[in-house]
Amino acid sequence: MKGLRVAIVGATGLVGQEFIKILQQRHFPVDHLELLASDRSAGRKLNYNGRQIEVRETTPDSFEDIDLSLFSAGADISRHFSPIAAKKGAVVIDNSAAFRMDNGVPLVVPEVNIEDARNHHGIIANPNCSTIQMVVVLNPLHQFNPIKRVVVSTYQAVSGTGTPAIDALSEQTRTVLEGQPVTPHVYPHQIAFNLLPEIDIFMDSGYTKEEWKMLVETRKIMHLPNLPLSATCVRVPVFIGHSEALNIEFDRPISADEARNILAKAPGVRVLDDPTVSLYPHPWMAAGTDETWVGRIRQDCSHPKGLTMWVVADNVRKGAALNAVQIAEEMRLRGWLGGK
Amino acid sequence: MKGLRVAIVGATGLVGQEFIKILQQRHFPVDHLELLASDRSAGRKLNYNGRQIEVRETTPDSFEDIDLSLFSAGADISRHFSPIAAKKGAVVIDNSAAFRMDNGVPLVVPEVNIEDARNHHGIIANPNCSTIQMVVVLNPLHQFNPIKRVVVSTYQAVSGTGTPAIDALSEQTRTVLEGQPVTPHVYPHQIAFNLLPEIDIFMDSGYTKEEWKMLVETRKIMHLPNLPLSATCVRVPVFIGHSEALNIEFDRPISADEARNILAKAPGVRVLDDPTVSLYPHPWMAAGTDETWVGRIRQDCSHPKGLTMWVVADNVRKGAALNAVQIAEEMRLRGWLGGK
Repeated sequence: MKGLRVAIVGATGLVGQEFIKILQQRHFPVDHLELLASDRSAGRKLNYNGRQIEVRETTPDSFEDIDLSLFSAGADISRHFSPIAAKKGAVVIDNSAAFRMDNGVPLVVPEVNIEDARNHHGIIANPNCSTIQMVVVLNPLHQFNPIKRVVVSTYQAVSGTGTPAIDALSEQTRTVLEGQPVTPHVYPHQIAFNLLPEIDIFMDSGYTKEEWKMLVETRKIMHLPNLPLSATCVRVPVFIGHSEALNIEFDRPISADEARNILAKAPGVRVLDDPTVSLYPHPWMAAGTDETWVGRIRQDCSHPKGLTMWVVADNVRKGAALNAVQIAEEMRLRGWLGGK
Repeated sequence: MKGLRVAIVGATGLVGQEFIKILQQRHFPVDHLELLASDRSAGRKLNYNGRQIEVRETTPDSFEDIDLSLFSAGADISRHFSPIAAKKGAVVIDNSAAFRMDNGVPLVVPEVNIEDARNHHGIIANPNCSTIQMVVVLNPLHQFNPIKRVVVSTYQAVSGTGTPAIDALSEQTRTVLEGQPVTPHVYPHQIAFNLLPEIDIFMDSGYTKEEWKMLVETRKIMHLPNLPLSATCVRVPVFIGHSEALNIEFDRPISADEARNILAKAPGVRVLDDPTVSLYPHPWMAAGTDETWVGRIRQDCSHPKGLTMWVVADNVRKGAALNAVQIAEEMRLRGWLGGK
């Protein structure tokens, strides 16, 4: 099989750099790699498999002869350049929120709904980080016993916001340890040694857009247009790794052992659940890994058909770059994506 | 009214020192203050209203002529000395878990069930920190519209563990910022830039004891022996201030505005809920305050009779020392506690 000509749009950003790393780590068949960014970053050189590749400015001409474009440069850039790339035959996998809820755009988590990618029209959307790790866990349970309602509270790392937030957490933390007052700039309030129940903008319902995304994206990915789901999304002073406390209500009673057995065999999932020796997932251990980690699986004592559990994943990898590359891999395996 | 002869057991600990601070701040009528601790701490001097008071070792004789004993020295010390103090007429308000679930011991949050303190037998228990701030919010809502189920996820500060955990968070944070590996000692895993879904020991149900406490203590305080409640308790890298995401199911539908109006008038509660200008409670702003702060009040989009909200309080104050002093104040006002 011929390799692919790949473009990364937003190559200098946090997820862009993770794309480069993951393509190498997974020996993705790249014939040519085009690194694209804004004019500000053009001229910078980035390493790929021991070579230096110069970053170029994204223009409409950037997508000539490209087979696959991995976008992670924000919704505005995606809205502008994705249709251009798609028209030129460069299949787009877009990490932004620009097209996720568009009817003609598949929203894909490979472990859950890779079949949806088959009939794409040139653009495939990568879901929101907090959604991806949740549906990887919900889907195998739902196949066994239909899910009737989900309540989720998240604990989301600052890397979800990008490099400036990582820098802000480091700087603010130093400032606090020196006993000095912090002036927040990336977030509306201090994030060092603090938490903020605000991710993305607020909507009229009182939910944030991040919380709304978890609802509507989960419904679309799992083909459950009426699934009741309520999320509370909270930014926490962690660099990498999103955590989620899930309370799931099922159609029939289900035991923690049944869930553990199902999840132990589920693709992309790793069960780490031995409380007697404090074995459960936490963000520090999940950072840098590809799996979605699950632990603290127990029957929900407040609901006869409920389970509660704790889910952790690397939000920059499975929550963004890795999931996008996995979509491309699976499409290629199925002959839906190939060199021209 | 005559002042009280007060003993603080565990005076050199984090909550003990907060007791001393709060007695001064609230001009609690103290005629004599006895500071008690282990033999290790005996001889240390602590400030109280500009005077230096020497800490003495706790012995059975420590409680002669004492009217009120505020205990926060761990369950073992409470189990040993509380009955002795109570027998000598020194009414005990105990911050440990030793007696909370004993039938003969009132478990009291003044805003909720001060009447339960009337018929004490010398010992009154102060609830767990994460329970207190939750019931202060649940109770006024329940009076208006009976609560049928609660799902709560917590974000708990390290000060709940005591001074060694505060030091560990500072030290580990410095270590990580220097790029060095952390050797955890207070918690089973690193807490700096991390989270741990483990507070107190694990029980056979898969819940931790902290999670179980939130269930059984809430039932006892609110006189709802069958209330379904599921908690996930998580330690976060925050020094002071516990946060909680609550999903509450009611007997009848209830709007966010109704809840906001009820909570605005509820004792001990402050509503801070204007998302348009990022106004919501967070631990950094709640630290050092006496109120239980509520925000992010919205209808639960996953349940027709549900609300979801975000609750933050200073776990060392309202979650421990302040609540205990408020119990004493309210009992004194009612003539249930007085100088001999």
